[in-house]
Amino acid sequence: MAKDKKLVEAITSMEDDFAKWYTDVVKKADLMDYTSVKGCMVFKPAGYALWENIQHELDRRFKETGVENVYLPLFIPESLLQKEKDHVEGFAPEVAWVTHGGLEELPERMCVRPTSETLFCDFYAKEIQSYRDLPKIYNQWCSVVRWEKETRPFLRSREFLWQEGHTAHATAQEAQERTEQMLHLYADFCEEVLAIPVVRGRKTDKEKFAGAEATYTIEALMHDGKALQSGTSHNFGDGFAKAFGIQYTDKDNKLQYVHQTSWGMTTRLIGAIIMVHGDNSGLVLPPRIAPVQVMIVPVAQHKEGVLDKAYELRDRLSNFKVKVDDSDKSPGWKFAEAEMRGIPVRIEIGPKDIEANQAVIVRRDNREKQVVSLDTLEESVANTLDTMQREMLERARAHRDSHTYTATNYEEFKAIIANKPGFVKAMWCGDQACEDKIKEETTATSRCMPFAQEHISDVCVCCGKPAKAMVYWGKAY
Amino acid sequence: MAKDKKLVEAITSMEDDFAKWYTDVVKKADLMDYTSVKGCMVFKPAGYALWENIQHELDRRFKETGVENVYLPLFIPESLLQKEKDHVEGFAPEVAWVTHGGLEELPERMCVRPTSETLFCDFYAKEIQSYRDLPKIYNQWCSVVRWEKETRPFLRSREFLWQEGHTAHATAQEAQERTEQMLHLYADFCEEVLAIPVVRGRKTDKEKFAGAEATYTIEALMHDGKALQSGTSHNFGDGFAKAFGIQYTDKDNKLQYVHQTSWGMTTRLIGAIIMVHGDNSGLVLPPRIAPVQVMIVPVAQHKEGVLDKAYELRDRLSNFKVKVDDSDKSPGWKFAEAEMRGIPVRIEIGPKDIEANQAVIVRRDNREKQVVSLDTLEESVANTLDTMQREMLERARAHRDSHTYTATNYEEFKAIIANKPGFVKAMWCGDQACEDKIKEETTATSRCMPFAQEHISDVCVCCGKPAKAMVYWGKAY
Ligand SMILES: [Zn+2]
Ligand SMILES: [Zn+2]
Repeated sequence: MAKDKKLVEAITSMEDDFAKWYTDVVKKADLMDYTSVKGCMVFKPAGYALWENIQHELDRRFKETGVENVYLPLFIPESLLQKEKDHVEGFAPEVAWVTHGGLEELPERMCVRPTSETLFCDFYAKEIQSYRDLPKIYNQWCSVVRWEKETRPFLRSREFLWQEGHTAHATAQEAQERTEQMLHLYADFCEEVLAIPVVRGRKTDKEKFAGAEATYTIEALMHDGKALQSGTSHNFGDGFAKAFGIQYTDKDNKLQYVHQTSWGMTTRLIGAIIMVHGDNSGLVLPPRIAPVQVMIVPVAQHKEGVLDKAYELRDRLSNFKVKVDDSDKSPGWKFAEAEMRGIPVRIEIGPKDIEANQAVIVRRDNREKQVVSLDTLEESVANTLDTMQREMLERARAHRDSHTYTATNYEEFKAIIANKPGFVKAMWCGDQACEDKIKEETTATSRCMPFAQEHISDVCVCCGKPAKAMVYWGKAY
Repeated sequence: MAKDKKLVEAITSMEDDFAKWYTDVVKKADLMDYTSVKGCMVFKPAGYALWENIQHELDRRFKETGVENVYLPLFIPESLLQKEKDHVEGFAPEVAWVTHGGLEELPERMCVRPTSETLFCDFYAKEIQSYRDLPKIYNQWCSVVRWEKETRPFLRSREFLWQEGHTAHATAQEAQERTEQMLHLYADFCEEVLAIPVVRGRKTDKEKFAGAEATYTIEALMHDGKALQSGTSHNFGDGFAKAFGIQYTDKDNKLQYVHQTSWGMTTRLIGAIIMVHGDNSGLVLPPRIAPVQVMIVPVAQHKEGVLDKAYELRDRLSNFKVKVDDSDKSPGWKFAEAEMRGIPVRIEIGPKDIEANQAVIVRRDNREKQVVSLDTLEESVANTLDTMQREMLERARAHRDSHTYTATNYEEFKAIIANKPGFVKAMWCGDQACEDKIKEETTATSRCMPFAQEHISDVCVCCGKPAKAMVYWGKAY
């Protein structure tokens, strides 16, 4: 038992040091590791399997809306990156530059893509001639590189994995519809699959993407009360089209510029899963995203028939992602390990259970134990996973709601930010000066102007001038 | 009809100019396009969908053998690349170098991975301590960069997509078994899914991978009689383990080096599909890899009930990947376009067919037409796809066999290479001098020493000294 406990005790408790707790979970749950390449990480099998499941489910949802996958080059020639002025200003300071190919210096240096708007624009300028070529609704799954100074597993690293959708449309309206459609797709995915409730809204101009007309975002609240931007969708209008000359002939034979969007989700979602659902025993995975949903732990497995029974149950549960832990570790150790890895449901089966035609089902999130009949095991497991998925979302929403505050004046606002981690809803005049002041004085940033606007007061929480919008504010990752 | 024909006539015939035919198919079937990034290409939806299907099927087969997916960094610090002497010599001349991150020069330059042996070794050196940590059977799906001077779509480009498996084992025997297991997995995949017959064998030392003890390969024969290396599997022995210090404590508490393998398949498989199965009307896709297996073309679609019937058939055929071409193009145009894109089966349905409760099924590969009853359409389509898949493999095998020759002396060998495109089977003494001479004088290279050895003569086809092995020779891509 000393050994069994050790695995658990090695985690810092989240109340003591949330950042340390996070790193401990990442390491102990075997999700990733650091490498000799500074700022870059290894996705280990348990971490990559989470990303594969995210990919699989997102990709399925994308394709239902007409998205087609493509793959564009890793490199962007410097002259191409520079074509759109705002965009290059946003990204040039943080890209990695390739200067040599083989033994020769390149005639023009290239950066490793930090994002691929410029490549898609270059491609679309050739591909799109007529209204018949529209819309283009393309996406790619790849890695991108941003030369960050400070890095954190999954949340910020010099290379990360993501998908980036890039679309071109005949009309501004169609582009706006696609921008919002993808944001809602992201939000639904987070809520339905990751059990993470999100606030859907629009970024202020200060916080929008380099080169975008409008950026939409989903914002999630982590267990420590900090916000995590979890997916963004941008409407570019015809700005990039003008910079890159992407024009089509319409039905009246007139030349028009296309309207574009882009939208992306990244491996930082894994960080969100950890920080929304994890506890002091490790990771807690929502059943719908868990690479292993059910771990069967035989008790007294050396006794005749126990292991066979465990394998029999595994085979019966083949509709789920199920494994038997038949290693030579003690049951206590196996319980602790399955908890650390966040496996949603554990089934304990020993000689006495077999005799009584029953098994013990234990939920990872609330540790609730049920003794269930083996006759209806499939049903019991299905119900338990469904209930757990639903209750995890409800619990996360209750946490988010109980950590969302309202401020009507600046003193109140500052007091909340200083003392109560979470979102603060407050009115804003629309001036960047107020955003800047708030950020400087409180370190909170505007997270978004939610679609679901509320009228909290008539005036800006910062300057007292007439308010234009209600904003979610918070400290963010 | 003039327009319909144009689509087809635009392809150079393969008898006139095979290289041009290949490029035409790649473009007309909308698989890829060139970009502003020299030597790099865009995978367009039809090309990327092929890669997705390859990935999906290979990944499933990998996982059945215990493979786990991971993701390692894109960059390799120069000092890491240099740790294994043969390896760095093989790759250093053709890598892209990153020298700057953001606005600063890097303390040590890094290359974009041309392959990831060095990164996996660095990772394994930390991960592996005890025999309990073995084996490691990891794989990653990613892109790699090799700074090639000359490039060809799918066959050779500066960036390409692939999977690279990297394993570590306790014993030399286990490593050898894994090396061969993966080679056979590749071969079975090519034959069963891509309908491409392959020769399985071992590379000569001259042709093996930089740093490997032994390289195994599968070699396919293209329609023009040139060989294409289609997958390789390497046994590294403990060479990398010694260079990187990857040691484990065995059951007797002694320190041992691990034994390693790596194996990969790339997007050049798409080139193989084109060059093995394609014809002068375009691409011909084996049913098991086709993103669209069945295209339903309504005839006289403006007539009442025709489009509805087409959609009804599509819904009934939902077990297959099926589409209706309901665009406003003529049926002839649609036929030609479906042929260009290599869609295995076309179903024609018009007013007279509906009246007669029938449809016309046309196979892409041999253009065989069948009139089938709508009552048993699902069965007819299933049978047609199965038959086509099987016959495509048989046809490719017959082509390969009829283009495989035997040479017992050097004059004969040279005459075959000069006049008869294909494989030449001939004995070899084992000396690289003979390989070098053959390559210089005929441009043919040793493709492999097949597992299925034959005794053709006692002496080397080149120097007349005693023979050690039968070798497949050929000109190669
Ligand atoms: Zn204000
Ligand atoms: Zn010889």
